[in-house]
Amino acid sequence: MESWKTKITKVEPNHLVTKGYRQEDLIGNIPFSHVVYLLLRDELPSKEHGEMMDAILTACVDHGITPPTAMASRVVASGGVPLPTAVAAGVLSIGDAHGGAIEKGAKFLQDGVLKAKKEGKAIEQIAETLVKESREKKKRILGFGHRVHTSDPRTKRLFLLAEELKITGSHIKLSKAIEKELEKQTGRKLPVNVDGAIAAISSDMGFDYRLGKAFFLIGRVAGLTAHVYEEQTEFKPMRKMFTADVEYDGPSEKDLP
Amino acid sequence: MESWKTKITKVEPNHLVTKGYRQEDLIGNIPFSHVVYLLLRDELPSKEHGEMMDAILTACVDHGITPPTAMASRVVASGGVPLPTAVAAGVLSIGDAHGGAIEKGAKFLQDGVLKAKKEGKAIEQIAETLVKESREKKKRILGFGHRVHTSDPRTKRLFLLAEELKITGSHIKLSKAIEKELEKQTGRKLPVNVDGAIAAISSDMGFDYRLGKAFFLIGRVAGLTAHVYEEQTEFKPMRKMFTADVEYDGPSEKDLP
Amino acid sequence: MESWKTKITKVEPNHLVTKGYRQEDLIGNIPFSHVVYLLLRDELPSKEHGEMMDAILTACVDHGITPPTAMASRVVASGGVPLPTAVAAGVLSIGDAHGGAIEKGAKFLQDGVLKAKKEGKAIEQIAETLVKESREKKKRILGFGHRVHTSDPRTKRLFLLAEELKITGSHIKLSKAIEKELEKQTGRKLPVNVDGAIAAISSDMGFDYRLGKAFFLIGRVAGLTAHVYEEQTEFKPMRKMFTADVEYDGPSEKDLP
Amino acid sequence: MESWKTKITKVEPNHLVTKGYRQEDLIGNIPFSHVVYLLLRDELPSKEHGEMMDAILTACVDHGITPPTAMASRVVASGGVPLPTAVAAGVLSIGDAHGGAIEKGAKFLQDGVLKAKKEGKAIEQIAETLVKESREKKKRILGFGHRVHTSDPRTKRLFLLAEELKITGSHIKLSKAIEKELEKQTGRKLPVNVDGAIAAISSDMGFDYRLGKAFFLIGRVAGLTAHVYEEQTEFKPMRKMFTADVEYDGPSEKDLP
Repeated sequence: MESWKTKITKVEPNHLVTKGYRQEDLIGNIPFSHVVYLLLRDELPSKEHGEMMDAILTACVDHGITPPTAMASRVVASGGVPLPTAVAAGVLSIGDAHGGAIEKGAKFLQDGVLKAKKEGKAIEQIAETLVKESREKKKRILGFGHRVHTSDPRTKRLFLLAEELKITGSHIKLSKAIEKELEKQTGRKLPVNVDGAIAAISSDMGFDYRLGKAFFLIGRVAGLTAHVYEEQTEFKPMRKMFTADVEYDGPSEKDLP
Repeated sequence: MESWKTKITKVEPNHLVTKGYRQEDLIGNIPFSHVVYLLLRDELPSKEHGEMMDAILTACVDHGITPPTAMASRVVASGGVPLPTAVAAGVLSIGDAHGGAIEKGAKFLQDGVLKAKKEGKAIEQIAETLVKESREKKKRILGFGHRVHTSDPRTKRLFLLAEELKITGSHIKLSKAIEKELEKQTGRKLPVNVDGAIAAISSDMGFDYRLGKAFFLIGRVAGLTAHVYEEQTEFKPMRKMFTADVEYDGPSEKDLP
Repeated sequence: MESWKTKITKVEPNHLVTKGYRQEDLIGNIPFSHVVYLLLRDELPSKEHGEMMDAILTACVDHGITPPTAMASRVVASGGVPLPTAVAAGVLSIGDAHGGAIEKGAKFLQDGVLKAKKEGKAIEQIAETLVKESREKKKRILGFGHRVHTSDPRTKRLFLLAEELKITGSHIKLSKAIEKELEKQTGRKLPVNVDGAIAAISSDMGFDYRLGKAFFLIGRVAGLTAHVYEEQTEFKPMRKMFTADVEYDGPSEKDLP
Repeated sequence: MESWKTKITKVEPNHLVTKGYRQEDLIGNIPFSHVVYLLLRDELPSKEHGEMMDAILTACVDHGITPPTAMASRVVASGGVPLPTAVAAGVLSIGDAHGGAIEKGAKFLQDGVLKAKKEGKAIEQIAETLVKESREKKKRILGFGHRVHTSDPRTKRLFLLAEELKITGSHIKLSKAIEKELEKQTGRKLPVNVDGAIAAISSDMGFDYRLGKAFFLIGRVAGLTAHVYEEQTEFKPMRKMFTADVEYDGPSEKDLP
């Protein structure tokens, strides 16, 4: 077995160094959200990147009881298990269809921007091509449209902040160009949703798309903890939470052969 | 089924209100760590409570690869699963023996302070009694001593901050009195550890002890995400991570009956 | 670090010995359910114990979509995650309130039988005392009553089998005596439920009560796998699964301070 | 919300029907492993398929403490959590690199057999082409070779049983042909491993490759339960389990900017 290398934390008696900084220096001096950035990037953020990171985490905290994250955590809490077990269950539901648009959306935008550079094309041209291609392949571009919101308050706020903090670059530009193209080519409004906004902004901040689900996860864990705590302190275990019309359409009842 | 009441988030089209505040107002205006406080407490923190909360989360981010949290996350990541699945595995290990000292320690301190008030006794007297009782029952008081650190840099920093922010109250006082009594009655130094410090400080901030594991969990998730990302990007799946001397001492090999 | 002892499996190149038996001997010669017994007990079951174990596992496989296990697995599957991640989410919900009656019920029965022996009393007398005590303390005896079934078909079948296989002993006797006492003292029928039946039978088979949740878990995983597979192959990700009337009763909407 | 259709279990008061059969009929009459088959296939297995299914589950129960499944479960158990939480952690590690060879291997074999039929070629020809292609693309064919065993006793036993039970068909044939081709083209022996054997056999039994991880999961849960129980009853929480040489190679220690 080779020795194991890690860039995260050096652990020695009475001495903890995380990504180069002593933990006693970080604690109370560097905002937690900036420490999150440090952990994912190897360096402390600039003032602007730090503020953006903080905003992104807050934008992910909660969306009520309807998403799989909150539902899974509350259902599992209802079985009478410890708080971390129930929070973890919600985290498990973060997948390609829930939060996954950040990861896949960021990959799509990053590939698009690379393509523009390589082919020497304007972002608007690339947007036109990408939307056309996706329509031909009947493949949705992730990060556009939302099942509840037509104008998501989180998206608007995040994009405004990105502008104020001068983070806006090619990825946000491409994201907005795709939004326009989608309306032009389909006649339907499919505005950038919160996942899409984070995909675009984090790409302009230089983040690896493979961290797409990480922002959502770290922010959402705060909301899930609140859900589990509420479930454990305000409700009885095994309460009836949801209603569903269920129809059994399996093999019809019969005797054993 | 009765209707389901929640104090966390009101979800309406284009409108998200969390604990009374519109999400677009929170994003970028209120630090993420203060939003965490809001989610767990129903109100925004004072400046001092907000700073303390932030420091507590940072104090929990990471302790290298040795604790069950990081080990579980990295082992599971090594199976070739998505990032959230591996992070969740680490969260699952937060239990009575790992992070649990915050919850149980806070309960112990909160009971102790109540007892002092009820019996009209000084904190020091109560500390003496509690240590005596625990020694008679041969039951460890949780939150004292650490397997690596004799003077944990995180603990010192957190207590200093609590003083600066004038958060210090009866629970921190009791915690320090117990530390002294432990040395007096046992002759051994068993300093307050980081769990014990958070137990004491969060109690002085008025937190429910049942949230003890929540602080640790929310902070640690940041570190776990970094571990999983490192594992997924720097190492091969199924690599040999650890060595252990294993001896099979089960029933000896035999034929089927 | 001391060497690590395990009684489960000896692993050598081309040679796997589990609880004393070569895996190639177990495979296809000993029924899987008997191998489960071997893993939990250190010896192969008698014919009777093996059949009973098999029946217990089958009795736990599924109860439709309503219990937390199935709901959690399907909700998590809906996020677009791999099959094992979604199955695990269901397993997480097995807790003190869901499946926990097997563990706690078995402990209660095992303590009751010990008490009867120690005090030289008849099982019926002990049942009377235990029910009286639980009513005085207003503490439910676990394993009696069900939210759907008044006469659970699984319970009846399991008890019948236990009789046929001559497994019936003091614990089943005590369980039935408690059922009678509950009706006598409360006037209400609270029949032994499936958890209670497994608690009684596994106790008569000599199982540690700490394995109570294990039977349920191992059986239920089969059903959860079917649920996740059905969700992944028959439904769209993020579909609306459940309806709930949700009322926000948190702090009222306001501006930031 | 449309009504929810399920083919798994009809739940009515005192009446539970799973895939067409009353649960009281299944319990104690149909072996548990055959009920697993029923849950995944919609019909009871033939005698031969039932025996094969049982053998497959047993072949997956345990491989000591080295694989991520057992390590994750034991590490998490060590945090002081309930048994199901720790078992679930092990299940989470079943991924593309651990158990995933069954799913991907089955897909590969099923595609190969289809290709042979379509192109009217012999299995041996197809094997030659597939191995050649995989070498050109430098992509491993999954299900061949093992990090511990050169002649896995489980594989041999499973293939022998498949022959005895007359389950052997094109997929097993292709699997063995690939094994031969691999040796011919690479000069190295890369025998079918246990994942590869299950991939081939389950394909010849007509199983959907998307259930590949399911067999492994359902069998392995039995072993994981034994591991967690052993950890909880024989060892102290938070014990030092593993050794690893860790080297911090992150940013070097420095003061805050």
